[in-house]
Amino acid sequence: MYKGVNASEGIGIGTVAVAVEPDLSFEAHAVEDAAAEKERYAKALDVFCQKTEAQAEAMKVSVGEHEAEIMIGHIALAQDPGMSDQINQAIDAGTCAEQALVDTTTMFENMFLSMDDEMFRLRAADIADIRTGLLAELLGREVVDLSVLPAGTVICVHDLTPSMTATIDKKNVAAIVTETGGRTSHSAIIARALEIPAVLSVENSCTELKNGMTVIVDGSKGVVVADPDEATLADYTARAEAFAAEKKALEAYRGKETVTADGVKKILACNIGSPDDVTAALEHDAEAIGLFRSEFLFMDAKELPSENEQFEAYRKVATALKGNPVIIRTLDVGGDKEIPYLHMVKEENPFMGFRAVRYCLANPDQYKVQLRALLRASAFGDVKIMIPLVTCVEEVRAVKALVEECKAELKAEGVEFDENIEVGIMVETPAASLIADKLAQEADFFSIGTNDLIGYTMCADRGNDTISNLYQVYYPAVLRSLKNIIESGVKAGIMVGMCGEAAADPLLEPVLISFGLEEFSMSAPSILRARKTISQWSKADADALAEKALALDTAEEVKALLEANAR
Amino acid sequence: MYKGVNASEGIGIGTVAVAVEPDLSFEAHAVEDAAAEKERYAKALDVFCQKTEAQAEAMKVSVGEHEAEIMIGHIALAQDPGMSDQINQAIDAGTCAEQALVDTTTMFENMFLSMDDEMFRLRAADIADIRTGLLAELLGREVVDLSVLPAGTVICVHDLTPSMTATIDKKNVAAIVTETGGRTSHSAIIARALEIPAVLSVENSCTELKNGMTVIVDGSKGVVVADPDEATLADYTARAEAFAAEKKALEAYRGKETVTADGVKKILACNIGSPDDVTAALEHDAEAIGLFRSEFLFMDAKELPSENEQFEAYRKVATALKGNPVIIRTLDVGGDKEIPYLHMVKEENPFMGFRAVRYCLANPDQYKVQLRALLRASAFGDVKIMIPLVTCVEEVRAVKALVEECKAELKAEGVEFDENIEVGIMVETPAASLIADKLAQEADFFSIGTNDLIGYTMCADRGNDTISNLYQVYYPAVLRSLKNIIESGVKAGIMVGMCGEAAADPLLEPVLISFGLEEFSMSAPSILRARKTISQWSKADADALAEKALALDTAEEVKALLEANAR
Repeated sequence: MYKGVNASEGIGIGTVAVAVEPDLSFEAHAVEDAAAEKERYAKALDVFCQKTEAQAEAMKVSVGEHEAEIMIGHIALAQDPGMSDQINQAIDAGTCAEQALVDTTTMFENMFLSMDDEMFRLRAADIADIRTGLLAELLGREVVDLSVLPAGTVICVHDLTPSMTATIDKKNVAAIVTETGGRTSHSAIIARALEIPAVLSVENSCTELKNGMTVIVDGSKGVVVADPDEATLADYTARAEAFAAEKKALEAYRGKETVTADGVKKILACNIGSPDDVTAALEHDAEAIGLFRSEFLFMDAKELPSENEQFEAYRKVATALKGNPVIIRTLDVGGDKEIPYLHMVKEENPFMGFRAVRYCLANPDQYKVQLRALLRASAFGDVKIMIPLVTCVEEVRAVKALVEECKAELKAEGVEFDENIEVGIMVETPAASLIADKLAQEADFFSIGTNDLIGYTMCADRGNDTISNLYQVYYPAVLRSLKNIIESGVKAGIMVGMCGEAAADPLLEPVLISFGLEEFSMSAPSILRARKTISQWSKADADALAEKALALDTAEEVKALLEANAR
Repeated sequence: MYKGVNASEGIGIGTVAVAVEPDLSFEAHAVEDAAAEKERYAKALDVFCQKTEAQAEAMKVSVGEHEAEIMIGHIALAQDPGMSDQINQAIDAGTCAEQALVDTTTMFENMFLSMDDEMFRLRAADIADIRTGLLAELLGREVVDLSVLPAGTVICVHDLTPSMTATIDKKNVAAIVTETGGRTSHSAIIARALEIPAVLSVENSCTELKNGMTVIVDGSKGVVVADPDEATLADYTARAEAFAAEKKALEAYRGKETVTADGVKKILACNIGSPDDVTAALEHDAEAIGLFRSEFLFMDAKELPSENEQFEAYRKVATALKGNPVIIRTLDVGGDKEIPYLHMVKEENPFMGFRAVRYCLANPDQYKVQLRALLRASAFGDVKIMIPLVTCVEEVRAVKALVEECKAELKAEGVEFDENIEVGIMVETPAASLIADKLAQEADFFSIGTNDLIGYTMCADRGNDTISNLYQVYYPAVLRSLKNIIESGVKAGIMVGMCGEAAADPLLEPVLISFGLEEFSMSAPSILRARKTISQWSKADADALAEKALALDTAEEVKALLEANAR
């Protein structure tokens, strides 16, 4: 039995196929005819780009638009003039194309790796992937092809690169096991998008798992069982069938209203990071977009996206939702989210520093570009503006004043927008929780960001494993904070939603129903399950459970109570 | 007019004397007779240590015991075997004593400077100070002597080193101006201990202020006025007199009880960092020690202080307080407080990481050494144990279980301690504020740490200037949190104190009286002023003010209200 990272849920049972990386070794040699060598490189680059484009096209259908764009990004990165120039210069200096490619890409890769940021680590992985593809092209060797596997294959590979994924035929792959990667790696994202069970970072799995071996991959628990005995196999087969049956049973909730057992209407919304994610949200039956994280627009760019670029992205989502609400959070930069071209100063405590609305209000002209884009998009759907990291009424008033300025400008320019656009806030700081009643007088809606709220309330960094026990929604302090926020909003008559991970926690959902939460926003695959959970709780039952939970003293007791009462 | 850091309050008017640093230039030369050169260095070291010891003795009287210990620390540092060995080795290799001294001390200084910690920066300053003294000794030159200044002198110096301070004759010094140093530098600490107005980090002051020039130094505002005109001079003279008169008037409160205008008894306590600080606390009429920060015992050491070393320190304070309460906070390491020999892992968000009680509970054997020392000291006075950074009842219960273990051990060993020793908590996290009622059932007392509480509540790092506007006690969110904590403690019948800086804020004190705060703990020089402020507010008046403050929406409005009603 091997342990790894539970990256994509579900149980897969099948036969191992170890995807061997191609042998890309070569002898570096001196180059006499630099022009011919550059021509050889240019040709390889050309073929690589064509192949990648074809893969991206295939991927659009098999995986998803966003993932396909990663491949398109590879083309742009491979054609990057800075990188090409450096490779050509090395060739001019007498280096062979292979060595020039390896040297240059390794330098870029290390540069990205040296930056302490998930975003850049992904870029480094992209560079490595491009290097492999280009090198295989130059050497005339084949890269891993996962398109011709027999049904029921468990792919075992060192690292699942985007270019490999492009060739995966989902119906033949029972599960994926890799030697590297965490829950936010490309491999994980792709496995979840393909809904293939996956366990990542299983050490030495490519050498210890052998071709033809039967393995069980439990992507929910992060466990791989090699060569299982009959009893284990029967046990997991039953579990896999139960998982599949449960998933199938959830289909009964597709297209239905989201209502509690006593008929109270709730909203099931989706959290998205880019306009392309809307497809999956709608496919999974989302009724609204509860959180559109606009910073991805900024992170994927090399400079500030223009008003028009932003407008197009917002409008696309607004139009796709056909009048259903789309809550767009204004730029939440800082903390763990860095955007290089903004040149923000490195802080000792970035989570308690100059970020989100603080940064935006200090740069009002820049902020107004986004607000104008949001206003313009509001003519095409029910767009709502959401302010992140609010701690005081002063901030809400300042943002609303800027929105009014933008409205006046647009009116003068004769540009259409929704006069009654709602401006709400993320409630994710202890300060906002403490003055939720005052903020409810200023904001048009609340959306509770439990991820940060738990962290700030418990003074516990979500990414710090040493204190992960303190980072739990089940602490009485956190439950009380949620109760106060939700009840303050309800009392003031504004919509209260939640876009943190706790909204998709089936244990917590009855408690949230009791407090009066109206909108639950989550990642797309959780929506049908949440609709089912909500349908099984009446307000009276939820109240009884919440009352018991609030009387308890410890997180352990609270969690045990909720588990014992899970429906 | 020059601006600088307001390091020591009060207004000083006098005549500039620029303290010129001695010329310590020398020509490095090769050494033939290494033994003789080492002997020359040993002799210089000897004389330096004797002089320093004499200075320390003088300083004990003129400045204070703690400051004198800084000088004694210099002797230990100068005699450090590691440093001496390295200097002697360099001499053996043919380097002259001066160069060997400069090379070695510079290496040590840079090592300390490279560590991002205030404590180490102070050590680096110590090393530089020792180098100057030893070099002057080797070269036979005089260091700055501030003992023979005429009355009414404003000392202007690049950096006020501890060794210079030793020679200051307080009655002749009207004020101090330096070119470097912040509010926590040696210069600042010493100026405040001597109660001499001081403005630090005034750029180019040593060149722009000339000997004989008249200057005004406003240590409260951080302003230096050179060559003032008559009107300005008259204005500041009046202000200086008013400041002195006010200070004198406060003497009327010495030896008096601390009571509100309607006769409710309060406790004025002092925050201290080492047993030596007790003298100043008692001199300033403190009625208790509200916070003894035990981490300084650990920071000043090279390895974990033993149970006996800790016991002696705690006993010294307990004995000096003669039965009055002494609240000792257990090790609050992490966050901005680093202790090298504990080898704690560097974290991305240290303030939301593995620190304080979290660290202590993860190292129970180490923690029990401190708890045993505290229990043993409780036989000599009213020692109370305080747990830092509590976020849940689980932590309080775990510490109390360890205390019970220690009690059982001590009882078995026949060692005396106070069976009824109180175990209380710092209330300094949003979580603790939210469950203050539950914590009041577990803890014997509360002491509110406003410094961290404000930071965590507002998600604003106190050290981050960019967002300093958010770091204010006057935000409605913070006031409500304080109200909830204090009222929860009062309702449960436990003592509620405050040891954060807000306890010494005259604007806030009436609000704290209204909420029911019993103990106000602050730095020694604020005590008489606080006693006066408290004496001027009845509960009814305070309630009326607090009610108005709580009805307001913004920090600005709250502060303006409190300012308009200051007594």
